[in-house]
Amino acid sequence: MALMTGEQYIESIRKIPMEIYMFGKKVENPVDNPILRPSLNSVRMTYDLAQMPEYQELMTAISPETGERINRFTHIHRSTEDLRNKVKMQRLLGQKTAACFQRCVGMDAFNAEYSTTYEIDKKYGTSYHENFKKFMLYCQENDLTVDGAMTDVKGDRSKAPHAQDDPDMFLHVVERRPDGVVVCGAKAHQTGIINSHEVIVMPTQSMGPDDKDYAISFAVPLDTKGLFMIIGRQSCDTRKLEGSEMDVGNSEFGGVEALTVFDHVFVPNDRIFMNGETEYAGMLVERFAGYHRQSYGGCKVGVGDVLIGAAAVAADYNGANKASHIKDKLIEMTHLNETLYCCGIACSAEGAPTESGNYMIDLLLANVCKQNVTRFPYEIVRLAEDIAGGLMVTAPGEADFRDEKLGPVIDKYLKGVSTVSTENRLRILRLIENLSLGTAAVGYRTESMHGAGSPQAQRIMISRQGNLAHKKELAKAIAHIKE
Amino acid sequence: MALMTGEQYIESIRKIPMEIYMFGKKVENPVDNPILRPSLNSVRMTYDLAQMPEYQELMTAISPETGERINRFTHIHRSTEDLRNKVKMQRLLGQKTAACFQRCVGMDAFNAEYSTTYEIDKKYGTSYHENFKKFMLYCQENDLTVDGAMTDVKGDRSKAPHAQDDPDMFLHVVERRPDGVVVCGAKAHQTGIINSHEVIVMPTQSMGPDDKDYAISFAVPLDTKGLFMIIGRQSCDTRKLEGSEMDVGNSEFGGVEALTVFDHVFVPNDRIFMNGETEYAGMLVERFAGYHRQSYGGCKVGVGDVLIGAAAVAADYNGANKASHIKDKLIEMTHLNETLYCCGIACSAEGAPTESGNYMIDLLLANVCKQNVTRFPYEIVRLAEDIAGGLMVTAPGEADFRDEKLGPVIDKYLKGVSTVSTENRLRILRLIENLSLGTAAVGYRTESMHGAGSPQAQRIMISRQGNLAHKKELAKAIAHIKE
Amino acid sequence: MALMTGEQYIESIRKIPMEIYMFGKKVENPVDNPILRPSLNSVRMTYDLAQMPEYQELMTAISPETGERINRFTHIHRSTEDLRNKVKMQRLLGQKTAACFQRCVGMDAFNAEYSTTYEIDKKYGTSYHENFKKFMLYCQENDLTVDGAMTDVKGDRSKAPHAQDDPDMFLHVVERRPDGVVVCGAKAHQTGIINSHEVIVMPTQSMGPDDKDYAISFAVPLDTKGLFMIIGRQSCDTRKLEGSEMDVGNSEFGGVEALTVFDHVFVPNDRIFMNGETEYAGMLVERFAGYHRQSYGGCKVGVGDVLIGAAAVAADYNGANKASHIKDKLIEMTHLNETLYCCGIACSAEGAPTESGNYMIDLLLANVCKQNVTRFPYEIVRLAEDIAGGLMVTAPGEADFRDEKLGPVIDKYLKGVSTVSTENRLRILRLIENLSLGTAAVGYRTESMHGAGSPQAQRIMISRQGNLAHKKELAKAIAHIKE
Amino acid sequence: MALMTGEQYIESIRKIPMEIYMFGKKVENPVDNPILRPSLNSVRMTYDLAQMPEYQELMTAISPETGERINRFTHIHRSTEDLRNKVKMQRLLGQKTAACFQRCVGMDAFNAEYSTTYEIDKKYGTSYHENFKKFMLYCQENDLTVDGAMTDVKGDRSKAPHAQDDPDMFLHVVERRPDGVVVCGAKAHQTGIINSHEVIVMPTQSMGPDDKDYAISFAVPLDTKGLFMIIGRQSCDTRKLEGSEMDVGNSEFGGVEALTVFDHVFVPNDRIFMNGETEYAGMLVERFAGYHRQSYGGCKVGVGDVLIGAAAVAADYNGANKASHIKDKLIEMTHLNETLYCCGIACSAEGAPTESGNYMIDLLLANVCKQNVTRFPYEIVRLAEDIAGGLMVTAPGEADFRDEKLGPVIDKYLKGVSTVSTENRLRILRLIENLSLGTAAVGYRTESMHGAGSPQAQRIMISRQGNLAHKKELAKAIAHIKE
Repeated sequence: MALMTGEQYIESIRKIPMEIYMFGKKVENPVDNPILRPSLNSVRMTYDLAQMPEYQELMTAISPETGERINRFTHIHRSTEDLRNKVKMQRLLGQKTAACFQRCVGMDAFNAEYSTTYEIDKKYGTSYHENFKKFMLYCQENDLTVDGAMTDVKGDRSKAPHAQDDPDMFLHVVERRPDGVVVCGAKAHQTGIINSHEVIVMPTQSMGPDDKDYAISFAVPLDTKGLFMIIGRQSCDTRKLEGSEMDVGNSEFGGVEALTVFDHVFVPNDRIFMNGETEYAGMLVERFAGYHRQSYGGCKVGVGDVLIGAAAVAADYNGANKASHIKDKLIEMTHLNETLYCCGIACSAEGAPTESGNYMIDLLLANVCKQNVTRFPYEIVRLAEDIAGGLMVTAPGEADFRDEKLGPVIDKYLKGVSTVSTENRLRILRLIENLSLGTAAVGYRTESMHGAGSPQAQRIMISRQGNLAHKKELAKAIAHIKE
Repeated sequence: MALMTGEQYIESIRKIPMEIYMFGKKVENPVDNPILRPSLNSVRMTYDLAQMPEYQELMTAISPETGERINRFTHIHRSTEDLRNKVKMQRLLGQKTAACFQRCVGMDAFNAEYSTTYEIDKKYGTSYHENFKKFMLYCQENDLTVDGAMTDVKGDRSKAPHAQDDPDMFLHVVERRPDGVVVCGAKAHQTGIINSHEVIVMPTQSMGPDDKDYAISFAVPLDTKGLFMIIGRQSCDTRKLEGSEMDVGNSEFGGVEALTVFDHVFVPNDRIFMNGETEYAGMLVERFAGYHRQSYGGCKVGVGDVLIGAAAVAADYNGANKASHIKDKLIEMTHLNETLYCCGIACSAEGAPTESGNYMIDLLLANVCKQNVTRFPYEIVRLAEDIAGGLMVTAPGEADFRDEKLGPVIDKYLKGVSTVSTENRLRILRLIENLSLGTAAVGYRTESMHGAGSPQAQRIMISRQGNLAHKKELAKAIAHIKE
Repeated sequence: MALMTGEQYIESIRKIPMEIYMFGKKVENPVDNPILRPSLNSVRMTYDLAQMPEYQELMTAISPETGERINRFTHIHRSTEDLRNKVKMQRLLGQKTAACFQRCVGMDAFNAEYSTTYEIDKKYGTSYHENFKKFMLYCQENDLTVDGAMTDVKGDRSKAPHAQDDPDMFLHVVERRPDGVVVCGAKAHQTGIINSHEVIVMPTQSMGPDDKDYAISFAVPLDTKGLFMIIGRQSCDTRKLEGSEMDVGNSEFGGVEALTVFDHVFVPNDRIFMNGETEYAGMLVERFAGYHRQSYGGCKVGVGDVLIGAAAVAADYNGANKASHIKDKLIEMTHLNETLYCCGIACSAEGAPTESGNYMIDLLLANVCKQNVTRFPYEIVRLAEDIAGGLMVTAPGEADFRDEKLGPVIDKYLKGVSTVSTENRLRILRLIENLSLGTAAVGYRTESMHGAGSPQAQRIMISRQGNLAHKKELAKAIAHIKE
Repeated sequence: MALMTGEQYIESIRKIPMEIYMFGKKVENPVDNPILRPSLNSVRMTYDLAQMPEYQELMTAISPETGERINRFTHIHRSTEDLRNKVKMQRLLGQKTAACFQRCVGMDAFNAEYSTTYEIDKKYGTSYHENFKKFMLYCQENDLTVDGAMTDVKGDRSKAPHAQDDPDMFLHVVERRPDGVVVCGAKAHQTGIINSHEVIVMPTQSMGPDDKDYAISFAVPLDTKGLFMIIGRQSCDTRKLEGSEMDVGNSEFGGVEALTVFDHVFVPNDRIFMNGETEYAGMLVERFAGYHRQSYGGCKVGVGDVLIGAAAVAADYNGANKASHIKDKLIEMTHLNETLYCCGIACSAEGAPTESGNYMIDLLLANVCKQNVTRFPYEIVRLAEDIAGGLMVTAPGEADFRDEKLGPVIDKYLKGVSTVSTENRLRILRLIENLSLGTAAVGYRTESMHGAGSPQAQRIMISRQGNLAHKKELAKAIAHIKE
């Protein structure tokens, strides 16, 4: 099968009878739901751009397994150039959606599973790698969107998975059958899962010998029995129900998160990628997290490009674009954004092959990348709010603007430079609001903070990977210290 | 008349037939409107606390004019102790509302008008000071809430008021009558105006000799003919319409801003405080802005206290309160918040009397105060989001939580430490969301940035007040430089 | 006796036969030693300014005990105005010396001892307060400079004083005699001790019941038998031996530190202020440290004024003073510096009386003050180096400049704007070098970091004083959380 | 000729009769001068490591011109891998010297000249590229160290080169002869020139048509008549004369800068690489600066490794290495240092070929790299000083430590953990002092600020290269703005 068009993608999702809840009710037609649709449109962009010749190099790859052209989101990285192209593709998509386009988790799960299953098999003679490759080829051939589900709800953080009062605090096997296993549990914060065809489930942390039932990884389709999702609330989510294109800032694109529950979900044997090999749980987590921390050096940079552009447009419209302090703030925003990009590129360029042959990013630099992502977008937002001015949060809404009596008043009084319409001025301010405080702030700020692991998780990795012992030796050599 | 109770205040506002628009419609009963009511409750807190003996010293003062006990918000500062008590009162109110309580602009306008009218009269033999004092005593006796309206919409920033294509870009006199003047124009971003009895209008910047019609200051009641307001949209504003106490985070308190239009508003002579004395426009602006920049060293600190507390509670509920990095982040938040408080206190303690006898803050330090307010709340928010965790933006809403099927699922999976109910955990996260991304973020973030003047305005004042010439002399003396 | 003149002070120090070592040799005439003299000149400034009518209010006070005018450095603070005047006096001295003037430790020790001895006596019926007052009056009457010695060398940080392998790691009583005690130990980092008449010794930390011999406080003159000092090396210390006024940057003023050893020093009974009351050790430390953390909100601000001025002069001389980025950097430096001043003033204005009647600063705000001092001077230095340009560290020395052949070459090529001599340009750059990298950087940078306690010590105090429990209550009230 | 050994390099420099002045005197034997020798040792390290098999890949390359193995410092980059290897080589050398090893400027000048001369020739039919290649091959074959001299002293910054009152403010041609040209002028801040065999001179900025005589580039050996150097003073420079290995911190390595004067220096025709083609001056500057801004993402990272290691050792020796705040500070230092490395790697990985075939770095990212270098080393130093403790600037010197009476006292009282000698503790503190305040701080701090262009120069480039217009288009597309 060829690459899907965006339209084909939408229709393929429409056909999957998912069990989704929102505001206490089952969502009957998620594809056309005004709160959810923008997130679907963001994923669609990964299909639309793959159809365009000018983006073919970034958006697609030739599968070494089949020789077919596939979407890069289903590709296994075979070189540092692949890793860099991944980051560039993500920046491009961030620029085109100003939102989270959600398909990265699947790609990052693919690449982590690819090498980890290989190494488990090598040790235990299992066939996880074969299972995984079969699944992967199926996804490549059908150009599927795959979610990667890692974050368990965790319960009492001071206890191991098997020691929790409620065993479901970590997703685990509750029944072992000849043809597969049955699992229970929940994965929190699942970005984009409702726009996916399949979900890959992975353990959430390193595990000990007693956590055997928790060291489970597999893939199932989204309409699997027992699997359901409850949509999380985003800032300004219901503004999308008002029918105002202006007020939402970004009317077309968005992100979405859901609490995903596995209530006695059956997984057939050939869809299992890990099953009790507890010592590999940590490896899978570390690799997935590493790839995903690299990802943020692409996608958030693309969103940052839009926000920098929006601030610059706002300055133009406010008539303030010549002020030296405004120019300096735009430079600072660019500087910070490109620093993130440097981190995304560097951990890619310094990547290296795993035993299975696919390419891993440099773990230290990927964690440095993500750590910066937990800081700089906040400062970029702060500078954008500075440039935008207070009107961003005090301007009346579109209903006022379209009103016969109020419209002309607003038009007259909220005009910026004479050559620009008040409507356009309000539009750009709403976009900045969307990214600073609104639905997109969830992706650009909070997800930058906690996605792919909270800041402290990266600091622990930086500590582990930083080779302090070597640095101490260097210092002692210079200081002529003999111990 | 005695100090009003909170209930009396609410009813007094209810009696004023204001012309308020929102979402393209006239708001018929603003006092009971669920979007607007929280902002009224915040102002009410300034009345409620003034009734409580334990807060009497901070919340009230003895009027030197009448010997009566009055609300401090209508008081003229007579000492540096008054100035410090103002800041402490504001911190207290921030702590009790976690929102903007709006009554400060009137207090700051009072004190700026008091000294400026005195100096104009001294030069020109006018009777503005008498006019103002009469108005002030009326407000003190009736315990009124007064808005201070300064920010004009400004049109083309490169042109003076009189040189604008549309003369209404700055509020100005369009007709001079024996009994008063008629004005046209609009004031943007009017915080709390809809919860006020009266509004003091002031020019927005320094003016030149040709801007005579624009150098106008006066007070009118809120139901004056020709005066109407259009409510600005806030992030998550309509969430308050859903009837969920949990989801709004802070169900009781909030802030509000409105575009305020003066469409041929008549002002009687005895309510005029400046009328054409262009060289005093800058003085009035500088003094009002100075007092208001001091204010932020109190109110935002109080809101910060709530946010720090909320983050600490979230850490308790997440079971992470013993982690050293969490403790360190709470210390950092406290440190930043208290630094702001130091600035608020310092510019007060270093205050000095004006010619009229009331006390001005130290202008340099007040601008330093506000400049820090444009930075630290953003970092405090960032750290709060770090501590809160991603659940803050991915948790399902109250409707899901109250649902028969979904409720138990959410209760089970989103539980933190075992001793705390899931509901309480969600409540504290919603409060952090409210202050980080929601309606209160408008006050805690964007207003911290632009209220009382944007960051660059403070930098210009710091440059002017910093006495660089003196510092150069110090350096030359130390370096033994003779020129 | 009247206040001493600067000259009288110098001669009074000359008369004290101190045992001082430097570079492995006994310093025979420390008063005229070119490396040490600048530090003496800094202390002298505290005498010189006290003689000048324009500084009388800041530099002196009327002793409530004797009614005599005394130097403020020997004064017990009796009001928040006294506390603020202390900070202003320190800023003034920082401006006049661009260095550490060293006399503050004695003043801070005075005020900590005053209240602590009072409270010990109240509990134990001892006569420490009387002893201390007698000593204090002697110092006031003779206008003496007193060092305050607190920091023990501490040995193994994981062990209590009494549990150290070497008992001398904390200064302690080794012999108790009818007429007094004999002590052994060492105090590190003693700023200005060699320019003092007397030294007050205090314990370095909280102590337990087993540390009785270590809970010792007293005062002795600097020529006491068994007391000797080894001067610490400062960056660029020996440049002062070259005889070049230009190259040292600040030829007149400086600071000095010494390791101070107490080798069986006898202390007579009437000079003892604490002797075994272990539970008061922590109080004395906390109060001294609190006062001293306040001090840094004055002295370092004054030094900062000189550095900001020097950077501004360098910009003038480089011809870059009109560049917007230069102006902005000078504003930022001023902003940071005044923020420190705000903290110094605020903790003073919020001071309160102790049981003994003297005034303590607000402990929370004083720790916030010092915490900022561990950061902002570094950023001010960074900005100064940015403005100064690389020539600050690559310019040839005065010997080259005075050379017949090289002088004209340097004069020609290192000239800035045409109206300024190359010599003056070099002089101002050397002053910036002195404060950034040279002898004064020890005071302006490292002492800002570690003086009055390292950053972590302040964070612990901020944690203790921040009242997190109250903040949590505020948050729960707003979020309507009932537990 | 083969690669030189370190010893051969030293002897080769000894043979060159350079005219060097310091402290007003001609330096007769610079190679053995204790102030200058450490800088020579740093360059020597570029030879020593090239001899070691384990570093061969980084330190050397195969010349595509001759097929010979050459030192990478004389290599023309032919791939992005070459660019990355350059950065890695620089990090390695920073680690081995904890200082500036000076040879980079020549390498960066080589690569900038290579492509620029090619493009000039293409337009004008000149033979600069041939001239340059001949010179380059000579340097490769003889393994020479080459300085790159760019920074003119500039005089009045508001005037073009040809419009200066004194024409020598920019180096320029004063006489044109059949066999060559004669030039006059001076280059400031010449790092490592006294340790070089040859110097490449380049213009300092973009030039206009009237600046023909100033658009001159060439190479001459260091003993050319009319060429002389005056050594710049560094912080603590003369401490190296005291003979104490301990007190200097880094006794073996250092950097050096000199004001370099060209007093009627003759340049033969075949050593000229640009001569009046004013429109190429800017290109040469931009390319050289770009390469050199990349360099800082390597060398300063290596020095940072040593400083981080030194701080960690100091923490070990202080007994504080288990404290969570210490561990966190080491993580932060590592994070910042690796962020710089990311920038160095990223601008290399994104490099691209020029018309001449050699590889240029990505200009935007290289400027982002250097901009971060003007900030992070300062913060790394601040954290190192925090960890080190105040003893770093108050410890007595080696002369005291070696003294019979004082030595045992110091040994006893300045001991850290019991397993470590006091000497080693002092050694590591002196290394931190050296990098924070001492001679190496010139390289690690001030050179990080101003080397390869001051911060504002990078901001201008970031502004130019950031493509703000594209970002605005992205934002308008998302906001559905039609103009």
